[in-house]
Amino acid sequence: MIKISIPFVLINFKTYAEATGKRAVELARKVEKISLETGVCMGVAPQFADIAPVANAVSISVFAQHIDPIMPGNSTGHVLAESILENGAIGTLINHSERRLKLADIDAAIARAREIGLVSVVCTNNPSVSASAAALNPDILAIEPPELIGTGISVSKAKPDVVADTVKLVRNVNKKVTIICGAGITTGEDVIAALKLGTKGVLVASGVVKAKYPDKVLWEFAKAITKAEKES
Amino acid sequence: MIKISIPFVLINFKTYAEATGKRAVELARKVEKISLETGVCMGVAPQFADIAPVANAVSISVFAQHIDPIMPGNSTGHVLAESILENGAIGTLINHSERRLKLADIDAAIARAREIGLVSVVCTNNPSVSASAAALNPDILAIEPPELIGTGISVSKAKPDVVADTVKLVRNVNKKVTIICGAGITTGEDVIAALKLGTKGVLVASGVVKAKYPDKVLWEFAKAITKAEKES
Amino acid sequence: MIKISIPFVLINFKTYAEATGKRAVELARKVEKISLETGVCMGVAPQFADIAPVANAVSISVFAQHIDPIMPGNSTGHVLAESILENGAIGTLINHSERRLKLADIDAAIARAREIGLVSVVCTNNPSVSASAAALNPDILAIEPPELIGTGISVSKAKPDVVADTVKLVRNVNKKVTIICGAGITTGEDVIAALKLGTKGVLVASGVVKAKYPDKVLWEFAKAITKAEKES
Amino acid sequence: MIKISIPFVLINFKTYAEATGKRAVELARKVEKISLETGVCMGVAPQFADIAPVANAVSISVFAQHIDPIMPGNSTGHVLAESILENGAIGTLINHSERRLKLADIDAAIARAREIGLVSVVCTNNPSVSASAAALNPDILAIEPPELIGTGISVSKAKPDVVADTVKLVRNVNKKVTIICGAGITTGEDVIAALKLGTKGVLVASGVVKAKYPDKVLWEFAKAITKAEKES
Repeated sequence: MIKISIPFVLINFKTYAEATGKRAVELARKVEKISLETGVCMGVAPQFADIAPVANAVSISVFAQHIDPIMPGNSTGHVLAESILENGAIGTLINHSERRLKLADIDAAIARAREIGLVSVVCTNNPSVSASAAALNPDILAIEPPELIGTGISVSKAKPDVVADTVKLVRNVNKKVTIICGAGITTGEDVIAALKLGTKGVLVASGVVKAKYPDKVLWEFAKAITKAEKES
Repeated sequence: MIKISIPFVLINFKTYAEATGKRAVELARKVEKISLETGVCMGVAPQFADIAPVANAVSISVFAQHIDPIMPGNSTGHVLAESILENGAIGTLINHSERRLKLADIDAAIARAREIGLVSVVCTNNPSVSASAAALNPDILAIEPPELIGTGISVSKAKPDVVADTVKLVRNVNKKVTIICGAGITTGEDVIAALKLGTKGVLVASGVVKAKYPDKVLWEFAKAITKAEKES
Repeated sequence: MIKISIPFVLINFKTYAEATGKRAVELARKVEKISLETGVCMGVAPQFADIAPVANAVSISVFAQHIDPIMPGNSTGHVLAESILENGAIGTLINHSERRLKLADIDAAIARAREIGLVSVVCTNNPSVSASAAALNPDILAIEPPELIGTGISVSKAKPDVVADTVKLVRNVNKKVTIICGAGITTGEDVIAALKLGTKGVLVASGVVKAKYPDKVLWEFAKAITKAEKES
Repeated sequence: MIKISIPFVLINFKTYAEATGKRAVELARKVEKISLETGVCMGVAPQFADIAPVANAVSISVFAQHIDPIMPGNSTGHVLAESILENGAIGTLINHSERRLKLADIDAAIARAREIGLVSVVCTNNPSVSASAAALNPDILAIEPPELIGTGISVSKAKPDVVADTVKLVRNVNKKVTIICGAGITTGEDVIAALKLGTKGVLVASGVVKAKYPDKVLWEFAKAITKAEKES
């Protein structure tokens, strides 16, 4: 069911001007190029309205940034899982720190993703919440301390204990879920540190989207991953 | 700035299975056909992810079902006005009864729509809320008593006082805003009743989307509007 | 730290007219009387504004219906844990189905309760969400399928599998948390069924508050518990 | 119906530690003392759980910080208008910037307040939102630019245009509503400036609650009001 391989780099386009509309398509093409050249699995999470043009333009995995825990019906202004699947997404973020959900809704959103074959990536803010989310059996768990998001201070180097504790607490509850981490990731060293702490990839946003040369950053990430893979 | 003409028929696709993905495009084509044949201005409001394929397929106006009151930036999972504009929408619903917003956010969302040239259609539930929303100067106001939405009992025939009171209270506050009405609209008679009460069109969802023959319903709406126009 | 004994009966006053203001105090007195006479531990959860008068009037445990995950400061209109503690509450419901919270906020609210010595009772809607909440280490977990709340069809008799699965899934994650159940509890038999499924008490609202003779219902609950205790 | 006189000073206790539990009662006593000595009408808005002890202790007006737009019934964890009325409040803030409500809910909350005789004080963030809220006919409108709240930079001196524009736009829509202003009010001069701009009082929080000597600040406010009243 999982349409991605690990280690995995997921680039969240947020609502950045640099990754909206045509620029979302351009950035996705850069990500695709590096992914194809290096063989490192990379995905992109553009805005809802950009999913169709991005998915039409590239062969890499496209994720939504959120889905609502709803069935088809009367939910004007909400995001139906089927609508993003039909437009080319293969998965979705759920509960990003900028789009927190109620607990029962995370459970229902994961169930909806599973039901129609979308990869679920549930974001969490600390080790105990990570364990809690892991009990809901998402495909991927992305730990991101919100206080580091967008700072350039990487979770894997500045708060290694948060990542290590997350891996430990999550494994008590769930042996299978893939764990990645995010917040402040900007360099190859940050990525290597993340993998050494037991995660299988990174969730990154401004570190790539707001970079002067996104492809250069992605290239560095890919090299770091390839090196870490060889050594392990 | 208004890219639509009145009387105006706006079809809200909600998150109905019958109007998701490919079926959203097909339905939009039917709306376009009737609009072109009859000369009655019609628009469609598909889901966010369907905006690009729908706008690429048809020449009629495409609306989003919601925008968030945000500037470009860190708002994962939210709907940036620019993202829907760049993908072909010319306007947006705001504050639909299934996606109610905080008052300050309605104000900010209208301001964002105005700033980038999107037509704002603010939905309201009763006459006093309509007057309140009118004070924020949206382009269009759509009064929809939530208890009638999806019932097939039309606001214009079952609750004419609600529509008439809305027109009256709104005009005390705002002379310019275009007023339309919705909830339970399914027949040409419902549309005529709406126009006679002083509105300039209708907002309709299940009455068209869930109809056995949506084109037949739209044809009836268009005939009713043409007839009402001649008589007035 | 736990100021209650098990089996435990917690009566949620909701915002019922029958349990507001003076009538909250009167009802709490009835609960106190039955609790003292039968020796079965009972607590009440009145509305925020009724906590002080209820806690001043009775010796049984008083719970809030909700706290916000906030520290003292700028949070107009929110419920600070300290404010309910200082007015006599010894614990609080968190995440009731009528007041669902975001996952990160449940974690933070439990932490706040623990920090100042309030008993946390986290409500959940199904077995997987119960396991998820259990990973956050609340004092008590209350499983309540929302579709049965207020129906008089008891979870323990109508959906025994939900309760049994909850107990099983929760124990994989957390050995210590006290599990109670609720929704539709109106008779002594419902209470006995709940205890037999492995729970340590019940959360009840309309079954007591809306009863013609609340003391009679409570008396029946207490007798059922005493009987179940002797047999086990 | 209005149980207060103008000019009016309303002190919002927020969830400040300095105004929680016993300290809420103590602070309310200080406000009462100054109000009685100077004849300037002052009210307090403590936390929900503190309403009963504060209202029992003082003779001045007590307000809630928020009510939910609900009828008695199944609304665990919400604030029923009747519960705060029965415990001694005579009015309530609605839509404070730290507790923003959906537009339809502001309308319904004002209606609930009116129905049972509570004074409604609707908070707004700018002139257009103030006009919008005024169309809903609350008793009092409190304009507070959120960016100045808690800064000590007073709206009446730093942003006189915001206050003046609010008064002007509101009067186009509603001739009767009492307008007060808030945010950053800390001195008698701030209060005089507010009255000169056409408001009838102030909403203040940290300027009093966090002051070293709250009674001294209140005394200064009262003197300023008395002076302004004489001059006008």
